[in-house]
Amino acid sequence: MTVKIITVGEDILGANEEKAKANKKRLDSHNILTINIMSSPGAGKTSLIMNTINHMKSKARIAVIEGDVASSVDADKINEMGIPVIQINTAGGCHLDANMVESGLNGLPLAETDLLLIENVGNLICPNAFALGEDLRVMIASLPEGDDKPIKYPAMFADTDVVLLNKIDLQPHLDFNMDAFTKTVTKLNPDVQLFPISCKSGEGLGAWFSWLESEVNSKKNK
Amino acid sequence: MTVKIITVGEDILGANEEKAKANKKRLDSHNILTINIMSSPGAGKTSLIMNTINHMKSKARIAVIEGDVASSVDADKINEMGIPVIQINTAGGCHLDANMVESGLNGLPLAETDLLLIENVGNLICPNAFALGEDLRVMIASLPEGDDKPIKYPAMFADTDVVLLNKIDLQPHLDFNMDAFTKTVTKLNPDVQLFPISCKSGEGLGAWFSWLESEVNSKKNK
Repeated sequence: MTVKIITVGEDILGANEEKAKANKKRLDSHNILTINIMSSPGAGKTSLIMNTINHMKSKARIAVIEGDVASSVDADKINEMGIPVIQINTAGGCHLDANMVESGLNGLPLAETDLLLIENVGNLICPNAFALGEDLRVMIASLPEGDDKPIKYPAMFADTDVVLLNKIDLQPHLDFNMDAFTKTVTKLNPDVQLFPISCKSGEGLGAWFSWLESEVNSKKNK
Repeated sequence: MTVKIITVGEDILGANEEKAKANKKRLDSHNILTINIMSSPGAGKTSLIMNTINHMKSKARIAVIEGDVASSVDADKINEMGIPVIQINTAGGCHLDANMVESGLNGLPLAETDLLLIENVGNLICPNAFALGEDLRVMIASLPEGDDKPIKYPAMFADTDVVLLNKIDLQPHLDFNMDAFTKTVTKLNPDVQLFPISCKSGEGLGAWFSWLESEVNSKKNK
């Protein structure tokens, strides 16, 4: 199976919100739980997706949309796992938008999908402003980025449903104040689900999988 | 009546280039070496600046412009070191531009400055397209982000004068392929200066300081 690559320019005149609503309606009609995954470059979006596929593929039919400025290295990895995947190259654009995701949906087997994972472009600022049609937003923060990231990039932390705090295996080697981080995040976003995880050691992933499985099931039965 | 077409991107970038040239002329008139420091969120820009101040403050008069979406936590740290600093909050903007830097210059003692360090907003995409009036671009990559970042964000690595590869103290705990990283970076940018460093342990910083000192002196004597 070859990876499909869609190269799109940024549609600055597009009515993103309208298009996102149309995407959501289309995804709802198939009862697909759709998750928009956002983070800084290198925080662990692809590792999370690969771990999630490994755990969930016997329980749900998964599809993936990969957003990147350039390359298809992430989509290649997902493709090797036998999962339907579309790579969107933004050609310099710093976030996905609903038009790009619509193009992605056109290339995926929606009637045979329960869970759609959308990996946004690595960026803590702009992706937040562009709805894609998702049910839930998941952002990944990682310990090496430092505990002050919620103070410096508050919008992203305030508007997400889940914060996955990745790379907790590195804690002994870093000066990361977990209490300060948690306090800032929950102040910005009192209803957030916060899961400390390590995609490398597997620590903490069980809680994330349980939560996700329950969300997939509740969307299936809607 | 003909329809007016405004191509926003080109217009903004064109105006920015003009303003950046004006900033450069102003900075040149004071023989100030100006460095635009760019990276992902949390790669170590502020730590690098603080280390550089500690080493260089007896040798050069330093000033700093701090760019952030929100907060003044970085500028507060620089201020505590007794260094003239201006915080620019972009209010959601994902990069500094030449207009913002002009405002910053208006608040700094340019006649008593040899080295101006500009910390851009944490973002591996957009800052690359906006010249600020700098002499040199320095980007920081960090080991926890992974060795594939130059493949996924090529423009930033291609257009910089220096790559500082930070957090090398974490190498024993990570799967980071130094050869693969170096090979991709030098292929994108054959003339780049690449310094592996740790702002935490101090390893490798000596080479960066020597290079910077020589650049400051050569600008002073122009």
